[in-house]
Amino acid sequence: MPNADLELVDAYWRAANYLSAGQIYLMDNPLLTEPLAPEHIKPRLLGHWGTTPGLNFIYAHLNRIIRDRDLDMLFVTGPGHGGPALLANTWLEGTYSETYPDVPRDADGMRKLFRQFSFPGGVPSHVAPEVPGSIHEGGELGYSLAHAFGAAFDNPDLIVACVVGDGEAETGPLATSWHAGKFLNPQRDGAVLPILHLNGYKIANPSLLARIPHDELDSLLRGYGYTPFYVEGDEPEAMHARMTEVLDQVVDEIHRIKSTAERPVWPMIVLRSPKGWTGPSEVDGKPVANTWRAHQVPLAGVRDNPEHLRQLEEWLRGYRPDELFDERGTPRPELAGLVPAGSHRMGSTPHANGGLVLRELKMPGIRAHAVDVVKNGSTHSEPTRVLGRMLRDVVSLNADARSFRIFGPDETASNRLDAVYDVTGKQWQAETLPVDEHLVHDGRVVEVLSEHLCQGMLEGYLLTGRHGLFNCYEAFIHIVDSMFNQHAKWLKTHRKLEWRRPIASLNYLLSSHVWRQDHNGFSHQDPGFIDHVMNKKAEVVRVYLPPDTNTLLSVADHCLRSKDHVNVIVAGKNDTPDWLSIDEAALHCARGAGIWEWASNDEDEPDVVLACAGDAPTVEVLAATSLLRQQLPSLRVRVVNVVDLMRLQPDTEHPHGMPDREFDALFTTDKPVIFAYHGYPWLIHRLTYRRTNHRNLHVRGYKEEGTTTTPFDMLVLNDMDRYRLVIDVIDRVPGLGPKAARLRQLMQDQRTRHHHWIREHGEDLPEVRDWSWQ
Amino acid sequence: MPNADLELVDAYWRAANYLSAGQIYLMDNPLLTEPLAPEHIKPRLLGHWGTTPGLNFIYAHLNRIIRDRDLDMLFVTGPGHGGPALLANTWLEGTYSETYPDVPRDADGMRKLFRQFSFPGGVPSHVAPEVPGSIHEGGELGYSLAHAFGAAFDNPDLIVACVVGDGEAETGPLATSWHAGKFLNPQRDGAVLPILHLNGYKIANPSLLARIPHDELDSLLRGYGYTPFYVEGDEPEAMHARMTEVLDQVVDEIHRIKSTAERPVWPMIVLRSPKGWTGPSEVDGKPVANTWRAHQVPLAGVRDNPEHLRQLEEWLRGYRPDELFDERGTPRPELAGLVPAGSHRMGSTPHANGGLVLRELKMPGIRAHAVDVVKNGSTHSEPTRVLGRMLRDVVSLNADARSFRIFGPDETASNRLDAVYDVTGKQWQAETLPVDEHLVHDGRVVEVLSEHLCQGMLEGYLLTGRHGLFNCYEAFIHIVDSMFNQHAKWLKTHRKLEWRRPIASLNYLLSSHVWRQDHNGFSHQDPGFIDHVMNKKAEVVRVYLPPDTNTLLSVADHCLRSKDHVNVIVAGKNDTPDWLSIDEAALHCARGAGIWEWASNDEDEPDVVLACAGDAPTVEVLAATSLLRQQLPSLRVRVVNVVDLMRLQPDTEHPHGMPDREFDALFTTDKPVIFAYHGYPWLIHRLTYRRTNHRNLHVRGYKEEGTTTTPFDMLVLNDMDRYRLVIDVIDRVPGLGPKAARLRQLMQDQRTRHHHWIREHGEDLPEVRDWSWQ
Repeated sequence: MPNADLELVDAYWRAANYLSAGQIYLMDNPLLTEPLAPEHIKPRLLGHWGTTPGLNFIYAHLNRIIRDRDLDMLFVTGPGHGGPALLANTWLEGTYSETYPDVPRDADGMRKLFRQFSFPGGVPSHVAPEVPGSIHEGGELGYSLAHAFGAAFDNPDLIVACVVGDGEAETGPLATSWHAGKFLNPQRDGAVLPILHLNGYKIANPSLLARIPHDELDSLLRGYGYTPFYVEGDEPEAMHARMTEVLDQVVDEIHRIKSTAERPVWPMIVLRSPKGWTGPSEVDGKPVANTWRAHQVPLAGVRDNPEHLRQLEEWLRGYRPDELFDERGTPRPELAGLVPAGSHRMGSTPHANGGLVLRELKMPGIRAHAVDVVKNGSTHSEPTRVLGRMLRDVVSLNADARSFRIFGPDETASNRLDAVYDVTGKQWQAETLPVDEHLVHDGRVVEVLSEHLCQGMLEGYLLTGRHGLFNCYEAFIHIVDSMFNQHAKWLKTHRKLEWRRPIASLNYLLSSHVWRQDHNGFSHQDPGFIDHVMNKKAEVVRVYLPPDTNTLLSVADHCLRSKDHVNVIVAGKNDTPDWLSIDEAALHCARGAGIWEWASNDEDEPDVVLACAGDAPTVEVLAATSLLRQQLPSLRVRVVNVVDLMRLQPDTEHPHGMPDREFDALFTTDKPVIFAYHGYPWLIHRLTYRRTNHRNLHVRGYKEEGTTTTPFDMLVLNDMDRYRLVIDVIDRVPGLGPKAARLRQLMQDQRTRHHHWIREHGEDLPEVRDWSWQ
Repeated sequence: MPNADLELVDAYWRAANYLSAGQIYLMDNPLLTEPLAPEHIKPRLLGHWGTTPGLNFIYAHLNRIIRDRDLDMLFVTGPGHGGPALLANTWLEGTYSETYPDVPRDADGMRKLFRQFSFPGGVPSHVAPEVPGSIHEGGELGYSLAHAFGAAFDNPDLIVACVVGDGEAETGPLATSWHAGKFLNPQRDGAVLPILHLNGYKIANPSLLARIPHDELDSLLRGYGYTPFYVEGDEPEAMHARMTEVLDQVVDEIHRIKSTAERPVWPMIVLRSPKGWTGPSEVDGKPVANTWRAHQVPLAGVRDNPEHLRQLEEWLRGYRPDELFDERGTPRPELAGLVPAGSHRMGSTPHANGGLVLRELKMPGIRAHAVDVVKNGSTHSEPTRVLGRMLRDVVSLNADARSFRIFGPDETASNRLDAVYDVTGKQWQAETLPVDEHLVHDGRVVEVLSEHLCQGMLEGYLLTGRHGLFNCYEAFIHIVDSMFNQHAKWLKTHRKLEWRRPIASLNYLLSSHVWRQDHNGFSHQDPGFIDHVMNKKAEVVRVYLPPDTNTLLSVADHCLRSKDHVNVIVAGKNDTPDWLSIDEAALHCARGAGIWEWASNDEDEPDVVLACAGDAPTVEVLAATSLLRQQLPSLRVRVVNVVDLMRLQPDTEHPHGMPDREFDALFTTDKPVIFAYHGYPWLIHRLTYRRTNHRNLHVRGYKEEGTTTTPFDMLVLNDMDRYRLVIDVIDRVPGLGPKAARLRQLMQDQRTRHHHWIREHGEDLPEVRDWSWQ
């Protein structure tokens, strides 16, 4: 590369550095047309300088190679704290002003760009949804590489450049994400180019990977399956030359890998450059650049400390802004020589605004696989197994579009979705043996025993405009609680930005749930993810508890079609009565909650309401109802099933919330309500405490009692078995008389009988399915 | 090693394998004294055979070297699903029967051992707290190595053998845990011996690390800082010989490392052995051993399928039980030749029952660092900074005992606890540079940018009988939600086992909280960990929200002394009014909640209650109270502060819960209550929905609105600022008249004024601290 080009790259880098430092410090005098004065300085100096010049360096060089090779590239900023860098670069390349015309590429725009950063009413300090070209906020560290791999799936012409900070590299999720290269298909997927940025320090400590011997680092990266290329130093000219050379090599290598059938060993870059590069090297007699002191704001006292102010001015003028911007504040035309064309600019790639490239998912409809239900509850099926057949059709219908994937931590078969293997396999590029099943180089299922990686890859896949499903054991979805938080926060902001187009929802299918952990026990029993989800913005989150197979089909169909939500579906894999025909199921799911009249005998005037949400609670409520109707036929029992948990909230709290009048119509205003709920019982109280009849609501659910035992014993341990529910009714409905007292005693005896049987025989008594309505 | 010894190891291994398979299958006929019949078989076949023979192999060989070298060893079972292995081995070595005398080492005991496994009323299928010698349940994969390193800290004579399953090795937390070797001090800490068990398969897939080229695996492990020793094969005799040789080498190497001052490169073992080793190689015409089909129960139809029954009997008899156990069912005396002496048996090491070795933490008392408070709220301090000074004394007082550590993800200084660096440093064995501060080879602070690793190491440290604290940004503690779950579940069971002695509580100090994320923004704002914690058993969990410095000292003092709990403390690091003198603070914290009479003017008969929990809410409530008292002096305002959140619950729900009478005395039975709460407001409703006055409770809190902005703007965005609280009071207290209406308008104007000021100036208006009671 001729030196003139390197000079251009350097100028571009200086411009981005200038614009970055300006954002942290200045609220006026953006071009330094007058001497810097305290009133030009922001009152609160916020932001992270340390990582920023390195990000700017990478961005400038990627621009160069995108132009030279006409590449399609997406930039993932692991150190998302370096927001100023991405804001600077998108402004420089023009994509920022195209997205936000009120921040034009002139002096006024530059002033706004500076002022708005980390300023009230302005833009956040991270690479948040507001930043064009971003799919990764980077505030909670650890997910950049997983996002990058998710983005690369099924985008064969895309290179995802992913900067991994050396702080982030210490996190667990990032440490395992390196292995994702073993799933990427070189021909059918894009490439991920990891750029490990060793700038040496975190907030207050050196980073581990910057302090191990070179050989050890090299071994580690080769062990992860990469060929590392090193760009190390602090002298800009030499670093520009080296980075140019290395980028040419790695892009050549990526193209070579994509053109051969051999097992890929992907190239990656290690960039070792000083933290806070080009910033103040010493402040108040202490070293700053290339130390952790450069992490946030290197000069902290600029408004009140004339020496700091002087140092800042010297620092900023050191970038020679007059060579970079004309007197109107517009970047000089020669800088445009480094800007890629149109949507090849990384700030305007449609991959980072996934809704632009989203194609509707073709759905088979719910009738093709519905189970036949002649009488409510007279047949049985395994809900997730039937769903697996519907998903098989989703895979087939969208095979050409290559726009749907299923992620799971080795549980797709365990969760009984294995019908999908009729038409696809598990994508896998590592070694295979003859005994293996369903492992293919190109398949729609991705399984890796890391919930973090599953979640991260799916997020990256969705944010770049595709569709997917994460199936997981219910208890272990808590592993990604914080990742869910970050995605829900992203969606909340994304929904407010008109230029961001709607993307497919993040769909969780949680199976192998708390009530059926037969092979495991207490550590595998936790229905609390629902509670966790409910804390996020109501417009983003949805929770569904389909009680049987047909309702699961209806709910899954709805969720896979939906946009901009997080949908949580909790569904059983074990044999379950088919309560509803497909027509009844569709109607029930559309309503979200309703009276099951075929199971009730209340004729609009119940003595008690038995409510249920979840598959196991529904069986118990219907069994209890049957017992009550047989033994106390004059008692009027109403059965209410809730499939959409959000319906329980007031309509003022959630878009799916029920108006009080509707709630009262279901649950009455004054009758006892016994509610059997899948999860922790207090959640139902939290959702309903404002309702008229809340004082009569009695909730049963999982109360953290469990071990490796039988399904019925689990219900007894947590006081949610049918006998306990009958007792609850008898205890709460006044005036039931001596027959009820005898029934109560009978129920106690039954519990004892079951208890002894289970402990003696090690299995449940065979269930008598004797539904009163049949 | 002579062959006779290898034969003994093999016999021991066969015995353990026999006992393991027996647990999965048999409920009677334990010694196969009669032909196996369906009635001897458990009705529900549950458990995980696949990993078990490998665990037994390792355990037997570790016994051998413990005896030979007189070692002190702790066994951590990463693949905790292999519960049968640990139950078998502890029974064989006698520690099980010593712990549970009703399961003696004879035929009757063996029958009980078999029957109880995964049986209702029996023992769980995992290496749960019930298993002697265990500190690691292993159900949720990923934490074994972190636990092992935590156990090794400050135990210089201990070797922690940690089996890492190749499934677990794919998880994020495990992937980064390898780096923990960079913290362990070879002289002052023990050693961790990782044994990566490549048995090739997970539930339904091969494992990644078993399917990469040998060179790549070797690079990876060397890159993590280890020297791998390989034991690979399936032929028992050769494998015994090789394992013996390798164990001798690695123990030699550990001793060598501990005797030199060089940077340690620790040895580790890679054991590549077949999944389901020694089990059925083929079932129903399909390969089983050495495939994923051996994961759980290789022969699934034994009761009904005579061929399966035949295969099972052949398999069990293949271990030659008559050579291993005498006719009474007792292990033959020659097997005792492999059992270590006394507490060197891994099932009876006191390290695994930490309460046995726990020494009380010496505490400096809370007065030494208390801030002086003459008038409530007239001075200010930074709560966590002052706490840092108390922690410094805790470090000093317990320096000789080496029994206290602080863990954090690079945030100890950011959370302003850096006074501890006056007396200790951050432990670190990697390279150091002159610019580094506080990095030492032997220090009480461990910082690594992985919340998983911090949590896991602290758990391991506590479970082996020491004390500690995890300090973390509030939002990112969600990263370890699931680890908290597992520890809380462990504690719940541990507390019920009399032989397990109480251990120190797991203490979280969450700072840099939702209201003060000045450098960051929305992604760093999440107070939901409290909600998450509340789902676990009431006897285990505690949540504290100290409103100022002295209350923080009192709470921290209490938590550090407590046993068998998880304590969550949320405390600010920013300048906060000192509301209470140390005496007042101690009393207030002992009560957990109370009326602040100095701020109230209700004279036992309030018109309104202003309640608060958390530091930011407390400032706003007291500011609102001051405004009300100044502007509407006839209004009787009561201020209630809640420091122990569990006090809000009924005493039937939580041991700290308040009886209704007490709650009514604080919150009245009929007056409006405006409650400003640190976190998501609905939690307060969940805790109080049963209370008499709940209908008049109005809660303000964080409702998921935020960005990078000023502290006061955050309060306004979430409707928890003082002006909004005053408006809430005016809107809810009837009959306040026109003066109140004017005040309401003034408050609205103030909010608008602040809003405009903040957006124009980028900072908050200077706070006027004009407390009405002064």
